[in-house]
Amino acid sequence: MKDVQSYLDSHREQQLDELHELLSIASVSTDPERAADVRTCASWLESHLRSIGLPTVRVYDTPGHPIVYAEDLRAGADKPTVLFYGHYDVQPVDPIDLWSTPPFSPTIRNNKIYARGATDDKGQVFLHIKAIEAMLAVDGTLPVNIKMIIEGEEEIGSPNLAPFVKMYSEMLSCDCIVVSDTSMFAPGIPSLVYGLRGLCYVQIDVQGPNRDLHSGSYGGAVQNPLNALATILASLKDAHGHIQIEGFYDNVLPIDADERASLASLGYSDERLKDDVQVAELFGEEDYSTIERLGARPTLDVNGMVGGFTGEGAKTVLPARAMAKVSMRLVPHQSYEDITTKITAHIHRIAPVGVTVTVTDLHGADPVIVPRATPAMNAAVRALEETFNEKCRFAREGGSIPVVLLFDTVLKSPTVLMGFGLNNENAHSPDEHFDLGNFYAGMQAAVRFYGYVAVLV
Amino acid sequence: MKDVQSYLDSHREQQLDELHELLSIASVSTDPERAADVRTCASWLESHLRSIGLPTVRVYDTPGHPIVYAEDLRAGADKPTVLFYGHYDVQPVDPIDLWSTPPFSPTIRNNKIYARGATDDKGQVFLHIKAIEAMLAVDGTLPVNIKMIIEGEEEIGSPNLAPFVKMYSEMLSCDCIVVSDTSMFAPGIPSLVYGLRGLCYVQIDVQGPNRDLHSGSYGGAVQNPLNALATILASLKDAHGHIQIEGFYDNVLPIDADERASLASLGYSDERLKDDVQVAELFGEEDYSTIERLGARPTLDVNGMVGGFTGEGAKTVLPARAMAKVSMRLVPHQSYEDITTKITAHIHRIAPVGVTVTVTDLHGADPVIVPRATPAMNAAVRALEETFNEKCRFAREGGSIPVVLLFDTVLKSPTVLMGFGLNNENAHSPDEHFDLGNFYAGMQAAVRFYGYVAVLV
Repeated sequence: MKDVQSYLDSHREQQLDELHELLSIASVSTDPERAADVRTCASWLESHLRSIGLPTVRVYDTPGHPIVYAEDLRAGADKPTVLFYGHYDVQPVDPIDLWSTPPFSPTIRNNKIYARGATDDKGQVFLHIKAIEAMLAVDGTLPVNIKMIIEGEEEIGSPNLAPFVKMYSEMLSCDCIVVSDTSMFAPGIPSLVYGLRGLCYVQIDVQGPNRDLHSGSYGGAVQNPLNALATILASLKDAHGHIQIEGFYDNVLPIDADERASLASLGYSDERLKDDVQVAELFGEEDYSTIERLGARPTLDVNGMVGGFTGEGAKTVLPARAMAKVSMRLVPHQSYEDITTKITAHIHRIAPVGVTVTVTDLHGADPVIVPRATPAMNAAVRALEETFNEKCRFAREGGSIPVVLLFDTVLKSPTVLMGFGLNNENAHSPDEHFDLGNFYAGMQAAVRFYGYVAVLV
Repeated sequence: MKDVQSYLDSHREQQLDELHELLSIASVSTDPERAADVRTCASWLESHLRSIGLPTVRVYDTPGHPIVYAEDLRAGADKPTVLFYGHYDVQPVDPIDLWSTPPFSPTIRNNKIYARGATDDKGQVFLHIKAIEAMLAVDGTLPVNIKMIIEGEEEIGSPNLAPFVKMYSEMLSCDCIVVSDTSMFAPGIPSLVYGLRGLCYVQIDVQGPNRDLHSGSYGGAVQNPLNALATILASLKDAHGHIQIEGFYDNVLPIDADERASLASLGYSDERLKDDVQVAELFGEEDYSTIERLGARPTLDVNGMVGGFTGEGAKTVLPARAMAKVSMRLVPHQSYEDITTKITAHIHRIAPVGVTVTVTDLHGADPVIVPRATPAMNAAVRALEETFNEKCRFAREGGSIPVVLLFDTVLKSPTVLMGFGLNNENAHSPDEHFDLGNFYAGMQAAVRFYGYVAVLV
């Protein structure tokens, strides 16, 4: 163990060089023009996983982007098997002009590496690869059997992962799953995420007249798709932050006194959040604290909208169409299909006359709660506490990792969400970065985790 | 007169070639990158006006785009003086992908010329120039004194025209003003516009957090600028089409029975409008007919909005900011300044917490009614009825031509709004065009108009 740790410490320059290569590949899964880059990233991982000595490495084609798979079962049948899951695809980069340095030219400032995908999820995937490399290099063997799935479609809702996992469920069978795609509670404070919100993401298209019209000649007589869209979007939430879709809260459990106390004890600071994002006031659902709103309550956000003239100056146009993207984070007992049905019905019911409104289900995932008392979870607690010298917290996270539910259903194995990101590392926004301190600590924690799984699971 | 008409008929090829040249110049006044094209257009007009034999042609620089001025006072002090006003700047061309042919490559299809500015207003300006050319070529003189102002900033609210008209009010003094920048009532049916709505155009900027955030990590805790903007926009108008800004209708006069009857007698067809723009239902202010809504009632339209992720697929972003452009058409007794103040106050009053909202006055104009019984109006009626063999209608138009009020105030002369466009010629939208039948008829009507002014005014 000590040798493995010093191997990791003495290879930092090489680790950074390789991470730099990985982060330079523009694997934006949602952009059809980046499909070749996504494939390049899969090939890069394939070569790299071979080069560290994993005996089996394969790239599986899918109708979308490829899945990278690797395994080392040489620990033997009497040792437990860990399935590692991560993703090598990244979010789009716009607004590109707000990046301090180009998103695919990784740059180190203040011991943080800046690049799209740094924290979500390439950096966190890569620290596991480096941990495995170190164990193989020093010991010639791994303490457990390891299987790895690294997919290229997480940021677009993993459309091809479920068929893959179902088809290869035997190959993927394992005792536990580990995912590093979440955040630590705060700098220096490790945490394990036990609750993830689900997601329902729709696009609303509003079609008005057959062409853009002069608002002076037609305004007042023809419904304006932008006004209509604003009416639809405004109807989704009231001034108290309550979502107004009929039946939206039907299956949401109240937060009980125990959980309320446990969340309060985390000492979440509204002032720190305001300072972080630079707003005068926070806003959320009335009667809930910020930490409750962030993890234990469902939310609704407009993620984008566009229509008409958006250039400089004034153009008096009544546009032919308008579009918005809306997503909802769901909590346990809400279902993505049910909520998609409900928001679609709501929008059609309140859609103003004179326009045609289409609602498209872009993607979704059901919420999930993972058990906190599994042996794998205990292995993770030990690994984290030894690495960070700090008590591990249990947290709910606002984001969604749909794959957790898939693994639970198909592989029937518990998942450990052991993340090394930080919430303010700009996942999904300009200047995404990953703290290099956590990158190195993550490698050590991963080595310890695989070691404890060998004895505890 | 007959010789002038045959001169016009025999020069059609040349007229089209020249119009083609004029329409090929991308004089988009709102786009700073097109400033050189706007100047090129002014120079083109300067040369062209000289070439047809006008003794005085000048280009006046302004802090913005230049004003082209020409005059021929050789008819003498005992003849009336007509001031022609038009504009050579054009609207932006986006969405560019919806043009069937490029906006600055004029193309003739079905006896219509397609190009940005074809009907608004280059084609209509040019038919006056050709009428004047014909009179000078055939008679060697004009029946009246003519002064021409052709400006390059009409589409951005004519910011430099008022100072110019005030400074040169003596040079511009005249007995009447003629403007061809409006539409005929319907194909084959000439009309004179006596009422023009005013305009109030604002931009709303909503600033939320200091950067784009992950909606999974921050949604529910931080106000979303897109949701906030939708709330603001939706608050401006209710489901019955009534504008909800406090005091908005304070100065709006009810439509009296006479005008209601007169407007109804125009025989406006809702079915034709629905068929034209391809919508199942029209929408406008309750209790008013379409023709009343279009000309005699104020309106409010969102002209553009944008924010967040608008590309393909799904990105779970809570964006830092959002923007919308909103314009209102005003009717007599409403004032642009008063309405700008009222909408600004309304928006600030209802702005949701957690965001900073800025309202910017982009431009505006007061509404105007011109007298119908002036000698110049009578000259126009005769010219139009002889040319089109159809009774001339009097109409209110939805658009705004702020200059009319300026001329009334500073030059104290009545304006004749004698337009040859058609409402469905896509002014301000893709595939703008101008009917060549009306282009040629307009030249003949213009010749007759100047002739009747000589005897009637």
